[in-house]
Amino acid sequence: MDKITAISFKDGALVLIDQRKLPETLEYFECRTVKDVEFAIRDMVVRGAPAIGAAAGYGAYLAAKSLHERYPSDKESFMKKMDEALDFLENARPTAVNLMWAVNKMKKELEKNRESSMEIILDRMKALADRILEDDIKTNHRMAGYGNEIIPEGATILTHCNTGALATTGYGTALGVIREAHRTGKNIKVYADETRPRNQGSRLTAWELLQEEIPATLIADSTAATLIRDGKIDVILVGADRIALNGDTANKIGTFMLSVVAGVYNVPFYIVAPVTTIDFGIKSGKEIEIEERSPDEVTHIGGVRIAPEGIDVYNPAFDVTPGENITGIITDRGIIKPPFTDNLLKLKESEQ
Amino acid sequence: MDKITAISFKDGALVLIDQRKLPETLEYFECRTVKDVEFAIRDMVVRGAPAIGAAAGYGAYLAAKSLHERYPSDKESFMKKMDEALDFLENARPTAVNLMWAVNKMKKELEKNRESSMEIILDRMKALADRILEDDIKTNHRMAGYGNEIIPEGATILTHCNTGALATTGYGTALGVIREAHRTGKNIKVYADETRPRNQGSRLTAWELLQEEIPATLIADSTAATLIRDGKIDVILVGADRIALNGDTANKIGTFMLSVVAGVYNVPFYIVAPVTTIDFGIKSGKEIEIEERSPDEVTHIGGVRIAPEGIDVYNPAFDVTPGENITGIITDRGIIKPPFTDNLLKLKESEQ
Repeated sequence: MDKITAISFKDGALVLIDQRKLPETLEYFECRTVKDVEFAIRDMVVRGAPAIGAAAGYGAYLAAKSLHERYPSDKESFMKKMDEALDFLENARPTAVNLMWAVNKMKKELEKNRESSMEIILDRMKALADRILEDDIKTNHRMAGYGNEIIPEGATILTHCNTGALATTGYGTALGVIREAHRTGKNIKVYADETRPRNQGSRLTAWELLQEEIPATLIADSTAATLIRDGKIDVILVGADRIALNGDTANKIGTFMLSVVAGVYNVPFYIVAPVTTIDFGIKSGKEIEIEERSPDEVTHIGGVRIAPEGIDVYNPAFDVTPGENITGIITDRGIIKPPFTDNLLKLKESEQ
Repeated sequence: MDKITAISFKDGALVLIDQRKLPETLEYFECRTVKDVEFAIRDMVVRGAPAIGAAAGYGAYLAAKSLHERYPSDKESFMKKMDEALDFLENARPTAVNLMWAVNKMKKELEKNRESSMEIILDRMKALADRILEDDIKTNHRMAGYGNEIIPEGATILTHCNTGALATTGYGTALGVIREAHRTGKNIKVYADETRPRNQGSRLTAWELLQEEIPATLIADSTAATLIRDGKIDVILVGADRIALNGDTANKIGTFMLSVVAGVYNVPFYIVAPVTTIDFGIKSGKEIEIEERSPDEVTHIGGVRIAPEGIDVYNPAFDVTPGENITGIITDRGIIKPPFTDNLLKLKESEQ
């Protein structure tokens, strides 16, 4: 059972769990316009690459809905404003490819139905947004099944950031595999990095693991290295925001560091991500734009200042883990092993 | 000029900057009894291995002073209670060797003057506590001089935790070297790790660097890895809480992780610590007890809860960096290079 519903569409609104408020309060954030959705993505009301993609689908539909009301009989203005709205939505955050992927899908759907009535366009866009959401849930379960194959009985798993039901539309990517291993009775134990600066690990992952009653211990990010060296971690599972053709993976800041320590101490290091997170259009991680976020994320926590005023801050939201540090990429189409460029190209070809 | 006076003795009291309150407020914490000093060390009003040592010296003196008042003519009770007080003080925190070192020095002084009058004992203990404080200041400046030799012109230096005037009695260990490089006009730049979970980097190091007008940027701990890989760090300087004979170094959690990444990307990694931080009595880091602190340090910041209630936490205060990851140990007696066991033994012999 998927107990947490981070994303749903009800009574004409996209309803999101407000992840900025967890774990203190479980509040919902309603989006009735594309601006609401863009804000929700940018301000991280909703976060996690797959969840951002699903939210963006509904964002595009909400844009169409209100533009239809505004220009009921002016198709040209409707189409022009739709293009603007979709570009606006696509730029909410720069790193996660699922956002571009979902907006692009919506753009194509719009294009395909250009000659249809606005009513039909609206219906089609709603249907596609629903399908993105539903597909992601199925995708989660498929990844979880593949991923569970590499989890040993009684394993201790280290994870970073939040990749669970909150980051996706249902089960999770890395946390989906963890859920599946637990559900199938493997007696696993989890170490969760707190994941500075936004503490997705302490706020969200710890919360999800408690809800699921999966044995879990929270640690400061830099504690992971000692656990890895001391043989206390059997496998590391993390999510991804964008994967290049050579396996280079953009994910939450701190992922790269874990991969380096895992490499030195020979601990298997897996990425768990749907095929939609793979950007077949880029050859390496060098082409991935890394979002830099507000200094406040480092200098304040929960409104409390923890650094002196005037200090300069460097706050990249992601880092890029080179493909050579990655043992395998667990996708909804199976586990991809190195050499990544060859095997990801094969995957792409088999899809077409 | 040493602008920050974290430790001083005035009008019969040990006066400490309350480091729990920085950077929001600059408050002083007065210790009039050994219990006050023990609390100040345990609760981290005062922190940093050399500062703890200096505070402990005065703690021992304050114990002697109040026991003298309590047993003005009962030398036997005075001595018995002094032994208890010193043992109590020594156990305030388990990892930093400077605490044991300072208490041990005070014990020896007590023993040496066993036959003297209590007044003389008191005078001698006060004089020794003063000397520990003064020596540490001189020691800081000597380390800073040696350390500055390895800092290139225009270097970008990465540091972890707080090793400045707040962690010592005046100039700092790693931050002392940084101060000296800045003072001598080398146009350096500093990246400071925020240092979870207690944020000594954001609260204390950032504050000291701003006060000194040294160009500095604050980062989340896990951001360091990307900077190191991308060639943005010329040298890493950290302090130490205890150094074993083979160079294994206990320091703030996160130090080991940095050393692993530095090793992979060939960035020089130096420990800066006075000879008093070397524990010649232990052969390797395996013999160092690692203090585990309250889960609250990870689950709360400034009184704000950031993790759900009921989550298990593992919160070691320190980790051990193996000697083989260390380029050199910058001490007040010069820079010690590998092989550490040989060279530290030579240092010890030359001292006697």
